[in-house]
Amino acid sequence: MESVSRSVNRSTVSEWNDGKVRRLCDSLVGEEPLQIRLGRRPLSVTMRTPGDDLELAAGFLFTEGIIGSAKEVASLRFGNGSGSNQNVVEVELKRHRTLDLKRIRRNFLANSSCGLCGKASIEACRMQGIKRPNPRFRLDPEILCSLPETLRSAQVLFGRTGALHAAALFEASGKLIAVREDVGRHNAVDKLIGWALLQGRIPLADCALLASGRGGFEIIQKSLLAGVPLLASVSASSDLAVQLARECGLTLVGFLRGRRFVCYCGEERLGITPSPEP
Amino acid sequence: MESVSRSVNRSTVSEWNDGKVRRLCDSLVGEEPLQIRLGRRPLSVTMRTPGDDLELAAGFLFTEGIIGSAKEVASLRFGNGSGSNQNVVEVELKRHRTLDLKRIRRNFLANSSCGLCGKASIEACRMQGIKRPNPRFRLDPEILCSLPETLRSAQVLFGRTGALHAAALFEASGKLIAVREDVGRHNAVDKLIGWALLQGRIPLADCALLASGRGGFEIIQKSLLAGVPLLASVSASSDLAVQLARECGLTLVGFLRGRRFVCYCGEERLGITPSPEP
Repeated sequence: MESVSRSVNRSTVSEWNDGKVRRLCDSLVGEEPLQIRLGRRPLSVTMRTPGDDLELAAGFLFTEGIIGSAKEVASLRFGNGSGSNQNVVEVELKRHRTLDLKRIRRNFLANSSCGLCGKASIEACRMQGIKRPNPRFRLDPEILCSLPETLRSAQVLFGRTGALHAAALFEASGKLIAVREDVGRHNAVDKLIGWALLQGRIPLADCALLASGRGGFEIIQKSLLAGVPLLASVSASSDLAVQLARECGLTLVGFLRGRRFVCYCGEERLGITPSPEP
Repeated sequence: MESVSRSVNRSTVSEWNDGKVRRLCDSLVGEEPLQIRLGRRPLSVTMRTPGDDLELAAGFLFTEGIIGSAKEVASLRFGNGSGSNQNVVEVELKRHRTLDLKRIRRNFLANSSCGLCGKASIEACRMQGIKRPNPRFRLDPEILCSLPETLRSAQVLFGRTGALHAAALFEASGKLIAVREDVGRHNAVDKLIGWALLQGRIPLADCALLASGRGGFEIIQKSLLAGVPLLASVSASSDLAVQLARECGLTLVGFLRGRRFVCYCGEERLGITPSPEP
């Protein structure tokens, strides 16, 4: 395989098209493991597309509830102590900060004594300190409909590989603020939120977040932690995701395709008033 | 929210369509945490669509390399010891089986001393005991092209909710053997492989596996562990996934849409001979 960069590689593949076979040169998206360490302690391994890795690590620590702000980070660098390694990010927290492991949702759920259920998942999010996002944020539905096209144009890697997740932040005017891509949906959102965290932009009180793929529970949780008032996805949401969004006052949009979308809750930020139910 | 079953819930949402707003009743896919315990020890929490949970737990243990066959399982049941809980699956292994934690890929990577890279990921798969899948399996490209339509017709939950991942096993004749659905791609594959494991059908030497979403590294790894000779997905693969498939002799198909697909490797099982490269 010929390496163009670590995020895209070229390889010869066979194409079958209505019975005709030919060899062609395809661009494959990069995927490699990233280990995130807290000091010397391995915390997580995720398969990700190389690039924006320090942001990914910062975003992961933030959305997992391990850090509450960039100020808690003493250092964030590649390597495993002894040498340089582009697939290991080592994070040092400021001295003597005690990790409240109960605040980490997965740990809360893993040790849940009251029984494990959707309610416990929402309770775990509450313990992470989620606040109601900015009630004054407004987004015109016409602008909302234009965001997927803007995102697609900005997806550098997608254009070359044909399939990659993305997450992007937009102003209410429809202006793109930042976009991040990854083989994993969660990683794309963590890279974006990590970028915002390191830029000192959190809470993202005046932004809409657009995510490719589904608006599942964990994507809602990440958005709420980052203080985003409106989350849109091009696909469906789930019952628990909608429940969390409703309880926490997030505007949640799904199936954003062409000139149609579904709003699960928080219609007021879009200024839409549905006619009474039939 | 009105509960139809734990896998689908109905909820009233707002639809915006070219400026017109109306309220409609939507079906939302269920999403709840599932905790998998090895005895009393919490092993993992995953957000999943309720249903086929014992299969999910069995498939997870198998594809993570914790068990090598269904025979190693003494019991597999819902509950957390003291009572019944549909979101907790407790697995007891047969007495005194020592867990070789190094065989678990994530642990191997987390403790990798040689440096973390794609090569280490592939090495970790080898340590899980992946063998070359059945070289005699054949699948007609015309039949391959018919599989996505068969899968879609069999997706009970997708039809009601509009977005859900699926994984399915097919015979070489194109006959559907089994299908499993979930909010998560990995869970859908684990449910399917768990079903095969509990049915005593592994290795799946005479089956093709079709997965919705991307054919990423971890999906390839799971397929290889289950002994599947051909994996197809409707979307792209990644460089590392293709590398693993090539090294292990899997036939890997991507972008399976209509009457076109890309074959990354293992063309011989499809009987396609590409003309020489231009």
